Amino acid sequence: MTRSELFSQIQQKSSFLCVGLDPDLEKIPAHLRSEADPIFSFCKAIIEETADFAVAYKPNIAFFEALGAKGWETLAKVSELIPKDIFTIADAKRGDIGNTSKLYAKAFFESMDFDSITVAPYMGKDSVSPFLEFKDKWVILLALTSNVGSMDFQLIEDKAGKPFYQSVLEKSQEWGSPENLMYVVGATRGELIGEARKAAPEHFFLVPGVGAQGGSLAEVAKYGMNSTCGLLVNSSRGIIYASGEKDFAKVAGEEAQKLQEEMKELLERYL
Amino acid sequence: MTRSELFSQIQQKSSFLCVGLDPDLEKIPAHLRSEADPIFSFCKAIIEETADFAVAYKPNIAFFEALGAKGWETLAKVSELIPKDIFTIADAKRGDIGNTSKLYAKAFFESMDFDSITVAPYMGKDSVSPFLEFKDKWVILLALTSNVGSMDFQLIEDKAGKPFYQSVLEKSQEWGSPENLMYVVGATRGELIGEARKAAPEHFFLVPGVGAQGGSLAEVAKYGMNSTCGLLVNSSRGIIYASGEKDFAKVAGEEAQKLQEEMKELLERYL
Repeated sequence: MTRSELFSQIQQKSSFLCVGLDPDLEKIPAHLRSEADPIFSFCKAIIEETADFAVAYKPNIAFFEALGAKGWETLAKVSELIPKDIFTIADAKRGDIGNTSKLYAKAFFESMDFDSITVAPYMGKDSVSPFLEFKDKWVILLALTSNVGSMDFQLIEDKAGKPFYQSVLEKSQEWGSPENLMYVVGATRGELIGEARKAAPEHFFLVPGVGAQGGSLAEVAKYGMNSTCGLLVNSSRGIIYASGEKDFAKVAGEEAQKLQEEMKELLERYL
Repeated sequence: MTRSELFSQIQQKSSFLCVGLDPDLEKIPAHLRSEADPIFSFCKAIIEETADFAVAYKPNIAFFEALGAKGWETLAKVSELIPKDIFTIADAKRGDIGNTSKLYAKAFFESMDFDSITVAPYMGKDSVSPFLEFKDKWVILLALTSNVGSMDFQLIEDKAGKPFYQSVLEKSQEWGSPENLMYVVGATRGELIGEARKAAPEHFFLVPGVGAQGGSLAEVAKYGMNSTCGLLVNSSRGIIYASGEKDFAKVAGEEAQKLQEEMKELLERYL
């Protein structure tokens, strides 16, 4: 998917919502567990009820990988199920030497047909570039994550006082463009989203940490929105586990709609 | 596997060789391609011929993941095939927020029975700790990698002149001990192995980059060996693709033996 196609979707749906698919056998409603593939049934119902309000889906690969070969079959089926006009993110946080990253890229972009994959920056250019060589596919590079541990390394300042995540933002712009490179920028500190936006004015940011992790959507929009929105705000647990009963999908749809309505207002205010 | 069991193996075999399993359908000998599971047949033959000379095997997960669900079945079969007294490394370079890392840990330590997994440090403590909670299992944290891109971020100096990989070595020693935490330290620059050894005197280092990537085994031993050896030196392509013909496994065994003989001398010299 191209950047302009993604922006069209955002305008059409008045939404920049990404729904995170973290399907946990221990958390999905009990009545699904007797199905042949409970994880697939769960994701299918969630996607059907939220698709009108979401512009992106982000399956968290660990939740599928934890189920072994069967989990990979389910992941492939789920990725095929997502409507083609919705952006798909393989949240895999891969990254390895060149020939290995190339294989990860093939797994997610060719064997499956994801639009994008999250990638860890630690190993530098040759670990990221193989993912950037696929037409209309995207790297979403970790810059500033939303977890507590993000403070351990990402904020270490260099001799000039530049925090490490800023070095990642600057250096990686030599490898990709706003047409094929996004960044993960966590929502837990609004002013840092503003700092990241200064360093990467045109790029899309995938923003985790709204909801369960405590970030505010209004702050994200205030500090992070650019002229093509530039934001995909993810919510996982707040949507998919809003109800643990038989009405889980309907309630997920309602939660997604609430976020979409808030996003509509923010788009009208800032865009 | 415990550290003392690993060291016993090293003494018994006079070897600190790790054989990297990067099984690529395009590179394995042509006569294997008609088998039901060519990748499994390839790995099985390699393991049989090299097991006397190796103390560790390191399947590169990307090579299996690239084959989808079937690749995961093959990976599980290969991991079961490796003799129990040989240390196993899932070269997966995972790392995510706590609840997600926990699932990756379950996939590699419970669903499969790997002794260790390679982990990327960028997301900090809560991305690494879940892997450290499994008894007799190991994290092998990326510190200084052997690829060209390692220069992009790993050598950035902080205000006090400390390179970033040194911050990773120092900080992470608060999370794990030499009994459950190793580091990836690339072989391409001997003096940097010495610097890493000063920062982590007791920990094992997994050293890639000998052979195909140009590092010297003698330099690695000189700068990196400690009182319990403290080294696992990996060779992948130099062993498994030493011959592309029907004799590939026999030739792999010979290459492994050559390295083991060199390692025997180095162990006698430095230990």
